[in-house]
Amino acid sequence: MNLIIVYEQDFISGNANRILLTGKRFEHILKVHKAEKGKILKVGLINSAVGTGVVEEINSNSIEMRLTFGSPPPPPTPVTVICALPRPKTVKKVLHIISSMGIKRCLFINSFRVEKSYWQSPVLQRESIESHCVSGLQQAGDTILPVIELKKLFKPFVEDELELLSRDTHTLVAHPYTDTSLSDHCSDNKKPVTLVIGPEGGFVEYEIELLKHRGFTPVSIGLRTLRVEYALASILGKFL
Amino acid sequence: MNLIIVYEQDFISGNANRILLTGKRFEHILKVHKAEKGKILKVGLINSAVGTGVVEEINSNSIEMRLTFGSPPPPPTPVTVICALPRPKTVKKVLHIISSMGIKRCLFINSFRVEKSYWQSPVLQRESIESHCVSGLQQAGDTILPVIELKKLFKPFVEDELELLSRDTHTLVAHPYTDTSLSDHCSDNKKPVTLVIGPEGGFVEYEIELLKHRGFTPVSIGLRTLRVEYALASILGKFL
Repeated sequence: MNLIIVYEQDFISGNANRILLTGKRFEHILKVHKAEKGKILKVGLINSAVGTGVVEEINSNSIEMRLTFGSPPPPPTPVTVICALPRPKTVKKVLHIISSMGIKRCLFINSFRVEKSYWQSPVLQRESIESHCVSGLQQAGDTILPVIELKKLFKPFVEDELELLSRDTHTLVAHPYTDTSLSDHCSDNKKPVTLVIGPEGGFVEYEIELLKHRGFTPVSIGLRTLRVEYALASILGKFL
Repeated sequence: MNLIIVYEQDFISGNANRILLTGKRFEHILKVHKAEKGKILKVGLINSAVGTGVVEEINSNSIEMRLTFGSPPPPPTPVTVICALPRPKTVKKVLHIISSMGIKRCLFINSFRVEKSYWQSPVLQRESIESHCVSGLQQAGDTILPVIELKKLFKPFVEDELELLSRDTHTLVAHPYTDTSLSDHCSDNKKPVTLVIGPEGGFVEYEIELLKHRGFTPVSIGLRTLRVEYALASILGKFL
């Protein structure tokens, strides 16, 4: 946690700038930040400003801090990520990556090569999604939660929703079987990007054709097949 | 494993193209690739060519394949990575990332903010390093093991070895506290790169000054602080 995310409900009632933290954040501040009275930590109010917190009281299972908010969070990275649902373990990493890299909208979609059972994973429950996103925000010093959407049907999503969603953006689909390099598509173009990432093994031909029909250009990130999380990080790095 | 790495000792004696696999690779081929007689898999001979293997026999704890080698592995990514030694868990990820992204030389170095205990981790033993690198190669379809070096003293390394090591390359150090963007330094420059990555929290000023003195330009990857593994993947993505 390079920044500690706080919520409205952390504020001590009747106090505009004093919070009481317990549980994980309390333990983290004590163990990792080795907090003592007077220690200053970076703090952010969820979906709001960034500032600092001064440790004022350390109790046996809670900590009190006085907050001052000064600056806005870093600006968003203008990329919408659409990712074929990976295995649950990888979903957690994807959520961390997009949150820590400033992505503010991410959709998980179905695809022929997505295992059906993945859609039942508890990792997709709201609280789980939010906790992994918050971990990314705390890593990056950001406060604005990304919006995460689940689209369990590929064809209706691509045919009925994708066009509106990607209007006026640079539309790319990472695909291993193409000669067009991603690098040729992200040089000085400052237009926002809609980036589709396939499952391990790639989209099937029918899916790529549907995406091309919606204006998406297949781009390759090289001859090597990468794990989804590292492919994603390496592509997003081009837009930071 | 998108490609199965085999070794000289896997060959059945007196046979130039027949191998016998047991243990992890046997289990992986059976469970993940659901191998049966006649199945064709992608195979690579360590530090040599890439080809295919046809499953000829499946025994209770071994599998026999007939190999044909046809093509060279993908070309290396012309970046030497010099990374402040991260925590052991992250070392594994860094080894996977550099191997799967085609890096052929990586040095772990000391720095003021590297915890001394990290140097004692079993993850730095030769066999452990090699196994994580092989995992990256098998992911990426490559066969050439990267050379991994450990440099436990920062100053002697920077003063006595770095200049020779980085001669005729573009020399960059990823650093959070600079206004120079990495993007300005990796546009169309086809010169090989020597990339230094600091520890979480960054290099201290003294270390940055030493690196600058050796010709390294501090570059930033944005306002957000990323985990070492995602920072690395996002930077390397620019050179793929």
